[in-house]
Amino acid sequence: MEHLVLHEDVRSGNCYKIRLAAAHAGVAVERRGYDILLGETRTPEFLAGVNPNGRIPVLQIGDAFLPESNAACFYLGKGTQLVPEDRPAEADMLRWMFWEQYSHEPNVATLRFWRRYVGEDQLTQQQRALLPVKFADGAAALALMDAHLATRDFFVGRSLTLADLVLYPYTHVAAEGGFDLDGSPNLRAWMGRVASHPRHIGLDD
Amino acid sequence: MEHLVLHEDVRSGNCYKIRLAAAHAGVAVERRGYDILLGETRTPEFLAGVNPNGRIPVLQIGDAFLPESNAACFYLGKGTQLVPEDRPAEADMLRWMFWEQYSHEPNVATLRFWRRYVGEDQLTQQQRALLPVKFADGAAALALMDAHLATRDFFVGRSLTLADLVLYPYTHVAAEGGFDLDGSPNLRAWMGRVASHPRHIGLDD
Repeated sequence: MEHLVLHEDVRSGNCYKIRLAAAHAGVAVERRGYDILLGETRTPEFLAGVNPNGRIPVLQIGDAFLPESNAACFYLGKGTQLVPEDRPAEADMLRWMFWEQYSHEPNVATLRFWRRYVGEDQLTQQQRALLPVKFADGAAALALMDAHLATRDFFVGRSLTLADLVLYPYTHVAAEGGFDLDGSPNLRAWMGRVASHPRHIGLDD
Repeated sequence: MEHLVLHEDVRSGNCYKIRLAAAHAGVAVERRGYDILLGETRTPEFLAGVNPNGRIPVLQIGDAFLPESNAACFYLGKGTQLVPEDRPAEADMLRWMFWEQYSHEPNVATLRFWRRYVGEDQLTQQQRALLPVKFADGAAALALMDAHLATRDFFVGRSLTLADLVLYPYTHVAAEGGFDLDGSPNLRAWMGRVASHPRHIGLDD
């Protein structure tokens, strides 16, 4: 495999996803840190050389740059036990990965970012108006996960896949965004299963 | 292949994506229509039988239900010329598909839905506050596409992939959300290339 460099902010769950997928895939990834709160991913150098979108994470594969956390996880996991070979199961895994980016991350991760890193008193008027909407949508996403896990140990099939690895990072710190998981026993049991895997690493590892 | 049924609202670009991918893959899909404005995807029957998320499209594969438009496109395209076999190229295709759901659809498609189908005078106060944010983010997404296409005919590699097919549906009706593509010559040329493919079908076909 080509030399891999992860352009990241260490606090970001989207970056943690990639480190977690790499740990499970047994692949070494060099880390290069940026502080998004200081605008370090909006510099002319970053926009021209790493990602014109100004976002992290970006997985550098040799001389190529791959933005989008879940695409990077797919790259790392393909060909391992993390991606089912069966075609409907692979599509079902991607279904949860797209759902994570559309229905989970914009609510659960954004509230954590606003509350823990930006600070509620620093929010714009538009962001403040969105707080109740994002809280309701995030709570609905977490409830849907809990219901799905009522009869399953993992999101797809009978073992851990990338679907679990991309849903874990922001779910396990959902409390930092104000979400209460005390009433979600299936979700908490699933988090325990993910975290007890021998290849698991933590957000701060 | 199993019998396929697309649960859809005919006006939705996310549903059109799946018909477009099926046409390119040469696969027959039965269509079953719902009116989201009448709440037909929020009935107890739909939530219990099709998608607990209350959203369309859902691709039914035999007895299994696959939500998320881009996961359905992946299922249909896998094994055809629509999905590159090369691993970095496949991940790069998924990068654009995740980007579409995170940075394009929530802005470009949502403004079209609000302006064309809901009506600006029917929007909630929160939605109205979001109009300028979503317009700026949607315009930035379209500008990023135009810049990417300055040196390329298609989003990934040298031929059409699912990345093009999932980006086309909401881009080609972006004007209905108030976006002006007159100053985006690369984007317009690319739309012409997609629409002139012998297997192309239109939104209303």
